[in-house]
Amino acid sequence: MPTIQKSYAPNARIVPTSKADDPSEAENPYGWGFKDTEFQALDNGNIVLTGNRYNISGIEMPRLLGWMGGQLAMPLRWNDVAEVRPVLPSAPREAAGFLKSLSGVLAPDQIATDPETRLRGGHGHTGEEIYHLFFNRIARVPDMVVFPQDHEQVVAIVRAAAEHGVCLIPYGGGTNVTSALACPENEERPICSVNMQRMNRISWIDPVNRTAEIQAGAMGRKIMAELAEHGFTMGHEPDSVEFSTLGGWIATHASGMKKNRYGNIEDIVLDMTVVTPDGTLSHHSVVPRESIGTDVRKWIFGSEGMLGIVTSAVVKLFPRPGVQRYGSIIFPGFEKGAAFLYDVALSGLVPASVRLLDNTQFHFGQALKPAAVGLAKVKSAVEKFVLERVKGFHLDRLAVVTLVYEGTAAEVAMQERNCATLAKRHGGMQAGPENGERGYSLTFGIAYIRDLVFRHHMMAESFETSVPWSAVVELFARVKARAHKEHAARGLPGKPFITGRVTQIYATGVCCYFYMGFYAKGVEHAAETYLEIERAVRAEILACGGSLSHHHGIGKIRDVFLKDIQSPAALTWLKKTKVALDPKNIFGAQNLGLSADALARAANGEGRV
Amino acid sequence: MPTIQKSYAPNARIVPTSKADDPSEAENPYGWGFKDTEFQALDNGNIVLTGNRYNISGIEMPRLLGWMGGQLAMPLRWNDVAEVRPVLPSAPREAAGFLKSLSGVLAPDQIATDPETRLRGGHGHTGEEIYHLFFNRIARVPDMVVFPQDHEQVVAIVRAAAEHGVCLIPYGGGTNVTSALACPENEERPICSVNMQRMNRISWIDPVNRTAEIQAGAMGRKIMAELAEHGFTMGHEPDSVEFSTLGGWIATHASGMKKNRYGNIEDIVLDMTVVTPDGTLSHHSVVPRESIGTDVRKWIFGSEGMLGIVTSAVVKLFPRPGVQRYGSIIFPGFEKGAAFLYDVALSGLVPASVRLLDNTQFHFGQALKPAAVGLAKVKSAVEKFVLERVKGFHLDRLAVVTLVYEGTAAEVAMQERNCATLAKRHGGMQAGPENGERGYSLTFGIAYIRDLVFRHHMMAESFETSVPWSAVVELFARVKARAHKEHAARGLPGKPFITGRVTQIYATGVCCYFYMGFYAKGVEHAAETYLEIERAVRAEILACGGSLSHHHGIGKIRDVFLKDIQSPAALTWLKKTKVALDPKNIFGAQNLGLSADALARAANGEGRV
Repeated sequence: MPTIQKSYAPNARIVPTSKADDPSEAENPYGWGFKDTEFQALDNGNIVLTGNRYNISGIEMPRLLGWMGGQLAMPLRWNDVAEVRPVLPSAPREAAGFLKSLSGVLAPDQIATDPETRLRGGHGHTGEEIYHLFFNRIARVPDMVVFPQDHEQVVAIVRAAAEHGVCLIPYGGGTNVTSALACPENEERPICSVNMQRMNRISWIDPVNRTAEIQAGAMGRKIMAELAEHGFTMGHEPDSVEFSTLGGWIATHASGMKKNRYGNIEDIVLDMTVVTPDGTLSHHSVVPRESIGTDVRKWIFGSEGMLGIVTSAVVKLFPRPGVQRYGSIIFPGFEKGAAFLYDVALSGLVPASVRLLDNTQFHFGQALKPAAVGLAKVKSAVEKFVLERVKGFHLDRLAVVTLVYEGTAAEVAMQERNCATLAKRHGGMQAGPENGERGYSLTFGIAYIRDLVFRHHMMAESFETSVPWSAVVELFARVKARAHKEHAARGLPGKPFITGRVTQIYATGVCCYFYMGFYAKGVEHAAETYLEIERAVRAEILACGGSLSHHHGIGKIRDVFLKDIQSPAALTWLKKTKVALDPKNIFGAQNLGLSADALARAANGEGRV
Repeated sequence: MPTIQKSYAPNARIVPTSKADDPSEAENPYGWGFKDTEFQALDNGNIVLTGNRYNISGIEMPRLLGWMGGQLAMPLRWNDVAEVRPVLPSAPREAAGFLKSLSGVLAPDQIATDPETRLRGGHGHTGEEIYHLFFNRIARVPDMVVFPQDHEQVVAIVRAAAEHGVCLIPYGGGTNVTSALACPENEERPICSVNMQRMNRISWIDPVNRTAEIQAGAMGRKIMAELAEHGFTMGHEPDSVEFSTLGGWIATHASGMKKNRYGNIEDIVLDMTVVTPDGTLSHHSVVPRESIGTDVRKWIFGSEGMLGIVTSAVVKLFPRPGVQRYGSIIFPGFEKGAAFLYDVALSGLVPASVRLLDNTQFHFGQALKPAAVGLAKVKSAVEKFVLERVKGFHLDRLAVVTLVYEGTAAEVAMQERNCATLAKRHGGMQAGPENGERGYSLTFGIAYIRDLVFRHHMMAESFETSVPWSAVVELFARVKARAHKEHAARGLPGKPFITGRVTQIYATGVCCYFYMGFYAKGVEHAAETYLEIERAVRAEILACGGSLSHHHGIGKIRDVFLKDIQSPAALTWLKKTKVALDPKNIFGAQNLGLSADALARAANGEGRV
């Protein structure tokens, strides 16, 4: 338990009954998502998403592979599939003392050393990691995985790690795309993954003060479902919300698609409990806001498992919205769409989510549709005619805005009217709520496409940034040009796939999210080549005034840029603090580029960088 | 200059022309506020505020002293005035090496060692400090005051302090009420106050991205006036906004009265530049939001000058509101008013500011009115009749809500309608915009009352906290009961003065602000006695689930409670970080209760706590 008295627990608190896990929700250990869901190529060349979880599940898509091949200027054939053959890790390093000291604390089923479990603990969902998982091997994985069930067990694990020289890597949903979970190859100590997923309960709901304490290993879909039973939502819906966890959101400084209404993770979390090498960080009360000196809890946001393990947090609750509606608007071009977004951001009547898809993403969405037949075919042809002939839109230039409205009926009506007025100002044409809803639902099904295209010899990944408004249009142009330039410079086959969308709007700028990929058949070191190109594009982003990341974080694929975005003194602070607070480098997976030398000196108690 | 390249400065940036200080705005060196403004007792027993700056300036108030005396159950007589006699400090400690090394950097008029300047640098506006300033002496003051004019000069000052063993205390507006500026009596090094007020320019305004870079020493009234010329506001209006500075707001984690619309300081500041013992913290770009690891800039919020000196910050801008309106509503009692506030907070249509005054504060406001004559007298009598007879209100139980609405005409109209509907639900009666506006304007004039009542033998101070909604009513009752109990236990004369208001509302709770005082004539150690009672009341607040502070901060009057609000590990983190980042304790005024021993060891380079 936290070592400080928690005062004044209101009597009105509800303690929800805990639910057993649903075995039908088993996850795929060797790819994205649920085990029952996967894109498959049929003999007729069509693509289908198995299962029935998503809006595109079970629908035959005749155009997907062909369209993607056209983008790459290389054929993607339904029957030209690379074999996925994950390589299980060899025997783990010995950590007998560590395991013995935990044997009195953890039950046997809370410690795993089997190769499958260890392999899953050794990666997130970075494209590079998955490429190696599918076709090569993950260089190093944890030597063991532990599954604590309560706060005290986490305390015991951290204490044992300190005593026995074990490196700990906290594991939430394993959905990061920053290689944060990758085991340092030069780490000489045994590595233990601390899987938090059994700590997944809502401890209490306070319906008066609109707060809830939730264990850090709870996944987004469980949090949403259980809070909904009590009429509440936490409002945090990152694209990974099905599988990512509260602790992971805090550690990566996450952003949800509906942040306009509910805030980002730092706005939603009021308090947290964290196990560190010095013991437990906890606070005596949960209040809306305070000024109590520099607040150590704020240091945990974005700390990516470098300083400790979050075991629970108190979050704000919101009533579930009375009304939820979708919208979509087509603009003649990306610039017009961006100008619309700017006006919406400054209008004070901002929907829960507003996104702007570039032309390629619009066509990507079309390629995920079934073959149009009958009336749908006529409707589609008419729509195309209207777009191209009547309104002067061009199919190869238009951009699409999708919207989610949440709130009371009055709020939603007002936001809709406001968006309609502003859309007209920029030549937008309403494209209906169905297209908007489809766009948002696609977010979850589309995540499975990576595994499909990887099998079809494509290397691809997403990356994101945030920029001031004045840089948005220029950023998109420069990112695309740079991707093409780097692709050509390496003599890679065909053309690169590069597309982006604006996913978040603020008064002072936006978050931009890109997909980039290339045809990789016959390309040696495809994953490493991708990383090289992404880093070149990132340098371009930084030169445009963009950030190193809006919400994905740093991990091990962006740490080389830390010196470019902050002054030497800022980096010195990070390093000195890491050494002061974790002198034994117990949380050794994430080191901000801190040299092995400096860590060794720190571990020897020299306490300096 | 910051040592990292700032990228992508938009061409649209405006560089405002700098304005000379207005000599008519000279501040009172020995009390609150402007030199031309002071409450004075006239021979007829009436009180008047001199000058013409405020809504209550120049108005004779016949009831003020009598009403306050009634509250204290002790007579406050117009001609029974204690003599204010500030004691100038004796000669400063020598710091020849430090001053010599600065002589090439600072002009002679940027270094002051005269007793008046040093005395002002040695205190903020804590009641205890002012009591000692008026009637006793400030135990220790800085040995010199420096006035840097740019970032490089601050870098040079910090470097010289490190080299020559000088302790630095950053000074913004000197308005804190936490004794943050008090010089540690056991500090053996010379102490230098770093007065930031000459760094008061707006460096640039970016009207497209709605941001501005402002030097840290700029005072609120200057920032408001200069931004207004360009159609913008920063939206941050703490009660001290006339005199407090941007750097001070960051260092104290400040909150403005209109935070519902514009956010608190941590919501408004996007980037900052900070001089630390390790050099300058700076970042390469200003973006709306990012995930770049644990962000050292966030550590500065609330750091109270313990880790470095903020030299500038980039803040969000908002268009000046098209419409500003006020409102006031009378409720039959405090509980009804609190229930109304709760409904407003959860309604999603929250005015820029909502406050709830308890019954005593309502009467305090009445006591500041001139004698009612003619029609006003009739109106006042009629209002009283209506309140007491027709609506069933009781003058000794009612509570008052005041509101500020800002935004577009449509936004304001909607908020007003919403508040009117909710007020009816809780038995509220509209009391007109004039009373609302008067309440907010009083905030600034009323700040001068402390100096009046101190001269009339009263010891008084304010304190604040934040609590969940469910604790608000209980908190008010327990704070008042505890104040009475502690007052009685010490055998102090008469009765204590204790009154409070809710000043900020959030979805999850509120900020509560109290005034407490007692008749101190003949009371030995009145200031110390006040502090004892305040600490007892603070313990009561913590037991109610309240915070140590909502926005005032910790300073030297609440540091004894740090151990009660966070776990030992959290305190250890603060101490280890302080020692790692400021091993020589250059910023030695604020130490989180870190023992002199630990500091000595740290200064000896042992680097441990």
